[in-house]
Amino acid sequence: MVQLKDDERIDDLLAKEERRIIQSPSAFAFSLDAVLLADFTYVPKTRGKILDLCTGNGVIPLFLSTRSSVPITGVEIQERLHDMAVRNVELNELGDQLQMIHGDLKEMPAYYGNNKFDLVTCNPPYFPTPKTDEHNLNEYLAVARHEIHCTLEDVVSACSRLAKSGGKVSMVHRPDRLVEIIQRFKAHKLEPKRMRLVYPKAGKEANILLIEGVRDGRPGLKILPPLYALQEDGDYTDELKEILNGR
Amino acid sequence: MVQLKDDERIDDLLAKEERRIIQSPSAFAFSLDAVLLADFTYVPKTRGKILDLCTGNGVIPLFLSTRSSVPITGVEIQERLHDMAVRNVELNELGDQLQMIHGDLKEMPAYYGNNKFDLVTCNPPYFPTPKTDEHNLNEYLAVARHEIHCTLEDVVSACSRLAKSGGKVSMVHRPDRLVEIIQRFKAHKLEPKRMRLVYPKAGKEANILLIEGVRDGRPGLKILPPLYALQEDGDYTDELKEILNGR
Repeated sequence: MVQLKDDERIDDLLAKEERRIIQSPSAFAFSLDAVLLADFTYVPKTRGKILDLCTGNGVIPLFLSTRSSVPITGVEIQERLHDMAVRNVELNELGDQLQMIHGDLKEMPAYYGNNKFDLVTCNPPYFPTPKTDEHNLNEYLAVARHEIHCTLEDVVSACSRLAKSGGKVSMVHRPDRLVEIIQRFKAHKLEPKRMRLVYPKAGKEANILLIEGVRDGRPGLKILPPLYALQEDGDYTDELKEILNGR
Repeated sequence: MVQLKDDERIDDLLAKEERRIIQSPSAFAFSLDAVLLADFTYVPKTRGKILDLCTGNGVIPLFLSTRSSVPITGVEIQERLHDMAVRNVELNELGDQLQMIHGDLKEMPAYYGNNKFDLVTCNPPYFPTPKTDEHNLNEYLAVARHEIHCTLEDVVSACSRLAKSGGKVSMVHRPDRLVEIIQRFKAHKLEPKRMRLVYPKAGKEANILLIEGVRDGRPGLKILPPLYALQEDGDYTDELKEILNGR
């Protein structure tokens, strides 16, 4: 029996699959971004190992477990969120496949060694560190959203070292940082191979970037069809509904 | 009276505007890419100067002259195409605004000096130099499509030097070379600020990349709404029709 703490609640993660998730509006609730990354990424199905950095309450490992039988590890620096992730594994009885580590992603290459995973995923903080007075509101959310414990450079460096040569690194981020992301990928021998842009609706600028690199890959980028989140009438598009159903 | 040579013909350039263009199927006919670049790019309207590199028969200067009154110069290395460009200026009686130069873009920074133009546009060759036996078919088309006389590095370097600090550089290219384009832009102090992807139709990967950088600009990229060329039924989309009409 998994225990809920504070303002936590249990939600259904996917309409189709048997996955439930403990969330907390004040500490961590999974976002559309995590769902989109889990849908976008290449996933090794039956062989290999997956690592998810900045895993929060473990939402991406929970998603990926519906598409893969390989071992999946989630790393989270915030103890409160790591604790939710551990209980999420328990709640879904996925202890044989999923493992949650409380730690700093910057220390993972030393912990695991280089060149170890077939896939590394990450939904990192999107914003540079704010002024001190800005992130005092809520520490959990501030750490998840702002580069307080890890910069983009830290994230890409760790992903690159942990991925096998030929392995994939998938990330969700903001389109306005695409230039920096591409530069850091290249600097760490991650060749961007697939990219997808998500638009809130027709006629709007992209607001979510999905990008996948191959460690030591050869140049040549594919830009997948765009994804719209909402229809003109404000309802989810058919494709987003499919994704939320766990296609 | 402008004279036509060989297999040349005169076409209407835009449905709405009074522009006609001399083309030749065996030497140079303007492509959708040029039309899209002319629509995409920022254009100084009444003050400043514009330079178009790899101008071919002068299609982009002809387009931009419908949106701007500033002096526009086109540079083309192939004499046969430069000669068409000169006659296109004459045909449209635009000699007061448009000037066509027969020359190598690599020599333009030395010719003009650095830091001179408010906008530099370029529709460069897309493909690395082919094996010798591949480009023997038609020299004109080979030079326009393959990096025979200028590499992407040559193009970006020239654009960067010719643009004023704060000036724009707009380019059309292939999405599979986005990573290299971003790296070369950054290496030459061109900050990518606006990008648009063109998809042949819904559900397909992007096949045309439009990108605009600002010389010495600050980081932060906007990714504009996607453009589809064709509807499901194979007809042009409404937006492409608008662009072809010269919106």
